[in-house]
Amino acid sequence: MTVSPFDHPLLSGLLGDEEAARYFSVEADIAAMLAFERALAEAEAECGVIPRDAAAAIVKALGSFRPDTSKLKVGVAKDGVVVPELVRQIKAAVGAPHDTYVHFGATSQDVIDSSLVLRLRGAVDHIGLLLGENIVRLTGLELEFGSRELMATTRMQPATQITARDRVVSWRVPLERHQERLKELSGRLLVVQFGGAAGTLEKLGDKAGAVRAALAAKLGLADAPQWHSQRDTLAEFAGWLSLATGGLGKFGQDVALMAQTGSEIKLSGGGGSSAMPHKQNPVKAEALVALARFNATQLSGMHQALVHEQERSGAAWTLEWLILPQMVVATAAALRLAAELAGQIESLGH
Amino acid sequence: MTVSPFDHPLLSGLLGDEEAARYFSVEADIAAMLAFERALAEAEAECGVIPRDAAAAIVKALGSFRPDTSKLKVGVAKDGVVVPELVRQIKAAVGAPHDTYVHFGATSQDVIDSSLVLRLRGAVDHIGLLLGENIVRLTGLELEFGSRELMATTRMQPATQITARDRVVSWRVPLERHQERLKELSGRLLVVQFGGAAGTLEKLGDKAGAVRAALAAKLGLADAPQWHSQRDTLAEFAGWLSLATGGLGKFGQDVALMAQTGSEIKLSGGGGSSAMPHKQNPVKAEALVALARFNATQLSGMHQALVHEQERSGAAWTLEWLILPQMVVATAAALRLAAELAGQIESLGH
Amino acid sequence: MTVSPFDHPLLSGLLGDEEAARYFSVEADIAAMLAFERALAEAEAECGVIPRDAAAAIVKALGSFRPDTSKLKVGVAKDGVVVPELVRQIKAAVGAPHDTYVHFGATSQDVIDSSLVLRLRGAVDHIGLLLGENIVRLTGLELEFGSRELMATTRMQPATQITARDRVVSWRVPLERHQERLKELSGRLLVVQFGGAAGTLEKLGDKAGAVRAALAAKLGLADAPQWHSQRDTLAEFAGWLSLATGGLGKFGQDVALMAQTGSEIKLSGGGGSSAMPHKQNPVKAEALVALARFNATQLSGMHQALVHEQERSGAAWTLEWLILPQMVVATAAALRLAAELAGQIESLGH
Amino acid sequence: MTVSPFDHPLLSGLLGDEEAARYFSVEADIAAMLAFERALAEAEAECGVIPRDAAAAIVKALGSFRPDTSKLKVGVAKDGVVVPELVRQIKAAVGAPHDTYVHFGATSQDVIDSSLVLRLRGAVDHIGLLLGENIVRLTGLELEFGSRELMATTRMQPATQITARDRVVSWRVPLERHQERLKELSGRLLVVQFGGAAGTLEKLGDKAGAVRAALAAKLGLADAPQWHSQRDTLAEFAGWLSLATGGLGKFGQDVALMAQTGSEIKLSGGGGSSAMPHKQNPVKAEALVALARFNATQLSGMHQALVHEQERSGAAWTLEWLILPQMVVATAAALRLAAELAGQIESLGH
Repeated sequence: MTVSPFDHPLLSGLLGDEEAARYFSVEADIAAMLAFERALAEAEAECGVIPRDAAAAIVKALGSFRPDTSKLKVGVAKDGVVVPELVRQIKAAVGAPHDTYVHFGATSQDVIDSSLVLRLRGAVDHIGLLLGENIVRLTGLELEFGSRELMATTRMQPATQITARDRVVSWRVPLERHQERLKELSGRLLVVQFGGAAGTLEKLGDKAGAVRAALAAKLGLADAPQWHSQRDTLAEFAGWLSLATGGLGKFGQDVALMAQTGSEIKLSGGGGSSAMPHKQNPVKAEALVALARFNATQLSGMHQALVHEQERSGAAWTLEWLILPQMVVATAAALRLAAELAGQIESLGH
Repeated sequence: MTVSPFDHPLLSGLLGDEEAARYFSVEADIAAMLAFERALAEAEAECGVIPRDAAAAIVKALGSFRPDTSKLKVGVAKDGVVVPELVRQIKAAVGAPHDTYVHFGATSQDVIDSSLVLRLRGAVDHIGLLLGENIVRLTGLELEFGSRELMATTRMQPATQITARDRVVSWRVPLERHQERLKELSGRLLVVQFGGAAGTLEKLGDKAGAVRAALAAKLGLADAPQWHSQRDTLAEFAGWLSLATGGLGKFGQDVALMAQTGSEIKLSGGGGSSAMPHKQNPVKAEALVALARFNATQLSGMHQALVHEQERSGAAWTLEWLILPQMVVATAAALRLAAELAGQIESLGH
Repeated sequence: MTVSPFDHPLLSGLLGDEEAARYFSVEADIAAMLAFERALAEAEAECGVIPRDAAAAIVKALGSFRPDTSKLKVGVAKDGVVVPELVRQIKAAVGAPHDTYVHFGATSQDVIDSSLVLRLRGAVDHIGLLLGENIVRLTGLELEFGSRELMATTRMQPATQITARDRVVSWRVPLERHQERLKELSGRLLVVQFGGAAGTLEKLGDKAGAVRAALAAKLGLADAPQWHSQRDTLAEFAGWLSLATGGLGKFGQDVALMAQTGSEIKLSGGGGSSAMPHKQNPVKAEALVALARFNATQLSGMHQALVHEQERSGAAWTLEWLILPQMVVATAAALRLAAELAGQIESLGH
Repeated sequence: MTVSPFDHPLLSGLLGDEEAARYFSVEADIAAMLAFERALAEAEAECGVIPRDAAAAIVKALGSFRPDTSKLKVGVAKDGVVVPELVRQIKAAVGAPHDTYVHFGATSQDVIDSSLVLRLRGAVDHIGLLLGENIVRLTGLELEFGSRELMATTRMQPATQITARDRVVSWRVPLERHQERLKELSGRLLVVQFGGAAGTLEKLGDKAGAVRAALAAKLGLADAPQWHSQRDTLAEFAGWLSLATGGLGKFGQDVALMAQTGSEIKLSGGGGSSAMPHKQNPVKAEALVALARFNATQLSGMHQALVHEQERSGAAWTLEWLILPQMVVATAAALRLAAELAGQIESLGH
């Protein structure tokens, strides 16, 4: 089944991004959740919360653990989250007497949110590289065509002469601000989630802080107090994604408008039509507009999810799952398409 | 890759709906597109637009045609739509001399939009059945518990005594209005799209109307003038989907609030927690809220897509693809969950 | 203070609509609320629920009643709704012994929602007239320029020749569907709200149905069971508003694109620039796009408000107040602008 | 006319914020636009672009200038912006021969966007103070009630004991992150806009940079290259506003849920009901949820406006006007209400 174009065998060729999507595959999610459980056992053993033998047994079992995914699916349908059934399966793999130390002191949200952050870290790196590539490509266009003349268009009417540089700059400079913003928010975003049943890590007593710090270090994330009901860093990141696609949407819209009105831009490799073989449709440019409007739409839902009731809202949390992964992939796809579109520009200005 | 929970091997257990998702599988889409091309050839032969031999050859070739999907994916990436490459493959399967009559007078949008409507017809039927089942279930609750007492809650505060019937009615009556609305809009929605390159069916001359009517009849759709740049019927349908999930979200929210405050509702089969085995989380109720807020979010994007430039906007059209299928599946999932949740109510009121 | 352009002394010249805005003035709201209280007293007297003398005293007092609006403002800040303080003032105006029969059996929501519907009835009439005028204007364009040639543009690229009629039809036909839809939904929308404290009209005993029917008749609304927590008719109407502005946004976008590319359209009275006196900006066309995207944005919020907790949700209800009036005015403004823009088209096609 | 609750004589008592609204009054806008024209004349005279006599005459005339607002309204309706008519009136006030130096080298967008930023600077200060006050109030609650017990609620079900501190912290910590974010984005947001007709300041030749820097300094804004079609800083700020209200919405929701379930919170001064005098509705808490969902809705529109065509998009720009001021006022209102609500908490936990 392929409801979303980002997952669709055909449409993902245009609208998807393989590497970004990989972070949201069930394999990547399970791998990250297992990494969490392994790191947790190790951290707890190091801090003296669970026996070292238990940790060793857990790490060993996880090394060859393969979940029964059909049971996981049933578990999600029943529990709303995959973790209770996953932990049950891990415990069965570990066996007595060490199984009681699996997932010790943790709760489902710790596993799921930390798994998300671990994968967002990879996605952020990937997106950061694509962002850099776009800046390079646009700088290249500026160097090649920057001094040519272009008719500025304001309010859909010819205004005065500008240079191609002026317009290219309006595409590139926001991307540079996005780099700055991404750096700022990454420190807030890429942190471990670990709070236990209701956020107090009450089972860990005075070792709670030490375990959390060790867990974070093992996962390569920054340490931070639990944020289970504070979703602002995710909503902030979603806002960044939509800022990025919004600017790329402007790039796409500008290219499409130039392509329509004629001689100011020359693109290679436009799309074909089934009815009009002479056409060269600015397909990537249009897709950039679609992805910008898609993310602008989604962002609203991520902000609705800020109204996260009490210590854990199943409703608000689930809403994030329905939205954030698609926003990440939409952004990676837009960055990929924009870089390709920049590469298709054979001529700009007069 | 499984970016969307509706496609996700695990999360779809809670948030998906298999039958609704099937209408958006690549197999269903291709089958519907081939049905369109077959019906078109037949209709055009009947009206004397293409030779009967050609139509026979096309129908025969389509009977055993299996597309090369990897090439289709490349085609989408290049052309923005699957049809040019698909038609190329069909033509190759038909071979000379009849291949020139494949897709005769049609354009990509005719195929894609008609395929969408064909599949929405199935989805509408499915959703209509689920809607009916919910009404039956809620009526059952009313019969069983309707006369019991319930404390009305207004503005989050206890108000006065009502009966369980009063609250159940507030869940059921909107569903009955949705039935009425669905009937009204279906006549506008379930119509063929056939306009050719720019909507004028110029290649069919004075046979255009007859071909379109015959095509519609063969597909089991109503006949209507082309609507390639008039997307109001799709946005209206999206609005219906979100009205439906919104009301179910209220049902879910009410159940979750009752479950929280205690003895007014008794639910069987709540979700388990990985940290607190005593808990019975109202998972389906929360999922209903999440799906309501999801659809409410998406609806905005479908209405943005109404600003569909000129005779065909790649940007606005692509935006619909990113949104509408997920809204349909979200609605089917919500209806399924609501019926299940109604079935879990073991007691209501005092 | 003038936070919204719809209220703004300057911007409302472009983006507002005086008649539509009038329905949302505080004067219109209070007048409708007083009409409700008067009709309620009369209906209750006719049905024998309150003494005829009391009703006469209430009607007489309301005839000359002028609220103390500064106290009403304080009341809203405290109670979240204006009604408790308004009723207090009315009771003081009526005086003993009849004051106990003011607002008898009713609750704030009855007054506020019925007042809203009363004013929406006027707004629907106004919008219906504007819609008709647009259809007339577009039909006029079709008659005058319909047979001229126009280059179809698909995916931002020249496609094939069509006629001006083809494009005008794509603007007009959705408006005709909107007429059909408005008729369908009006029956659901324009109904009285009367339920008392928690929806059961418990103070009216077996006279409840008769009072409600009489109240509805006096207000010129259809009778219907209370819908205090069922907000689907309002969300449906909001969807209609956004469908309407969406189609007008397409009209505006098309006109702006034609104006940009040159000779296909000639507009009179374009907007001036402070820097470039030669320009003729397609201001109304752009405003149509802005209003379409505005309403598409707002619609999401109206659907979020469908998750209306229990018997009355202050949060969801207040959200409607923040959104629906602006959507109505945006729609009226768009219809006004579109009719004016159609009137500015001096030439279309070649 | 009072379409928006933020402008409404009664509803603004609950939902408005007088100081924030003042920044969006027509008086504040005109004052800021006149400040721009004055600073521009002075800066251009200092840099030798216009004669010092001309600047002196302009400054003198602006000192006593009072615009004819009815003509400004007509101007907006025609030109889409107020500036052409405003500049015409200023020129008339200055008179020959100096009038040609009014608004020299500038365009409407320079005036309007710089006026917006000037007023946002004030709004940011106001919001920053309110934010600080909320942090103080929440810290106070923590000090007073922090060590009391509270039943954690996860997924709408009782979980384990936490302290009141744990919950208060989840309200306060996001506010502290918002302070950090506001500092980061202010540097990008509070910059002058000055680009001339198409962004190149072509009339100022090699003095362009110096004039812009002097203009910025006089206005108390940072200097920056023109950003007329780069709207990311405004969308980023809108995202901040919605992050802020989202977190306050969680606070409101939590308080409303606690108020519903009973003894965990005691609030003074709840709202009254017209039907049930015994009720104490958590009006401010509900309003916080409504404002959070309102801003989450609006944010989508600000991101749609990122697709800003070419050198100036009337459509995208106008969309910002329809949305951003209301978001600012909604945020200030939410901060005001949250501080008041924190002050109403007489008891928290057991």
